[in-house]
Amino acid sequence: MGLEQIRIVLVEPLYGGNLGSVCRAMANMGLAELRVVNPSTDMNLEDARKMSCHARHVLEGRRLYEDFSSAIADCVFVVGTSGLEGLYRQHAVPPRAVVPELLRFSDAGPVAYVFGREDNGLTNEELAMCHRIVQIPSHAATPSLNLAQAVLLCCYEVFVVGGDYEPPVEKSPFADSASRERMFSIWNDLLLDIGFMKEDKADHMMQGIRRVMARGALTRDDVQIMMGVARQMQWAAKHGDPT
Amino acid sequence: MGLEQIRIVLVEPLYGGNLGSVCRAMANMGLAELRVVNPSTDMNLEDARKMSCHARHVLEGRRLYEDFSSAIADCVFVVGTSGLEGLYRQHAVPPRAVVPELLRFSDAGPVAYVFGREDNGLTNEELAMCHRIVQIPSHAATPSLNLAQAVLLCCYEVFVVGGDYEPPVEKSPFADSASRERMFSIWNDLLLDIGFMKEDKADHMMQGIRRVMARGALTRDDVQIMMGVARQMQWAAKHGDPT
Repeated sequence: MGLEQIRIVLVEPLYGGNLGSVCRAMANMGLAELRVVNPSTDMNLEDARKMSCHARHVLEGRRLYEDFSSAIADCVFVVGTSGLEGLYRQHAVPPRAVVPELLRFSDAGPVAYVFGREDNGLTNEELAMCHRIVQIPSHAATPSLNLAQAVLLCCYEVFVVGGDYEPPVEKSPFADSASRERMFSIWNDLLLDIGFMKEDKADHMMQGIRRVMARGALTRDDVQIMMGVARQMQWAAKHGDPT
Repeated sequence: MGLEQIRIVLVEPLYGGNLGSVCRAMANMGLAELRVVNPSTDMNLEDARKMSCHARHVLEGRRLYEDFSSAIADCVFVVGTSGLEGLYRQHAVPPRAVVPELLRFSDAGPVAYVFGREDNGLTNEELAMCHRIVQIPSHAATPSLNLAQAVLLCCYEVFVVGGDYEPPVEKSPFADSASRERMFSIWNDLLLDIGFMKEDKADHMMQGIRRVMARGALTRDDVQIMMGVARQMQWAAKHGDPT
């Protein structure tokens, strides 16, 4: 399953800032090959370099094409994006939905994810050449995304399934019930000793303490900390301020 | 379940272009309330206006705060974002994972989604004031997202669950087996009549035709089109070019 088979294709982009931001978004999501069809001759490449940030290699490595069909000629699967209602759009799917198919095809050869002009998107003729049409979910009153933002979202959905990201893991394992109960028992004794609660109300008060301290799953570290706090409070209550 | 209870909080942003892009990203994802803590005094507000596009109302409506704690003072749930490893970060979750909890709290009162400085993110002190820490999945070699891109991704994950977007629907219902079989039967007759296949190989050839034409689910419109094509080809083969 190779992200390296995925080509981002920009059709007739206008602005250098967007081009650079697209490069950065691609690199953030583990993609490197950018194809640009007939970019605006007015494009400000200084803006592109500035916005590409640490993804200068993607910008410098972009390949230029004169027309859309040559940019996708070698691709075995082509996904087009469309923001507007219109011809073909009733078949559009959200970016998340197209990912399994796109990754499956990327095992077989190059696949293209295609984004249209900032002002006019892709033409009907270009959309007709795509295997699938993706529509990014957006708010009805302000539906139109910036080009680089659209690229980021689509690449992100691919990356979370096909990429190498591993979410942070809790280093401390979850506490088991026995250690949780030891902790609550120490708190129970403490709260009786310091006069926070009386014996006959202890069960009721401890329900409240349990609710606060064990609202989520507790790790062993969490339990250690809260046992330590209780023990130290008990010591301090008996012996006074240790300093 | 109200997106209107969600506040995007930017802590000490530097660049007007990012501020404007954040506004556009928020509006794309149905959010409107922006809070800005101590923005750079050098910020170029002309850039902000340009990049905000159709989200000028978000930009103009932003509220300014002198420090982080006042910006989140009224919030019942605070999500901080962090791109780097470090203190607290082992408890970070991906943006998708925090959405159910965030939307649940937004029923009860204002909730904050907080984004740090372009260069240094949020401080440990700021992260400590958050209920949850979110880490956006990104590629290990180029992990750092542009501020507005980070805001977009987080808002998008909220919007796809809590927003008002409805994906396009196929207008034509799926074809049932009976109509699919009628279509294949017409094609079978056609391909025999025009000599594309012989009777003894027909079953085998029709498997190939079925594979191509029914790889995905066919709608009634699809079946109508392909029946029409077959009928017209048969007519043309008998009567010659109709023009």
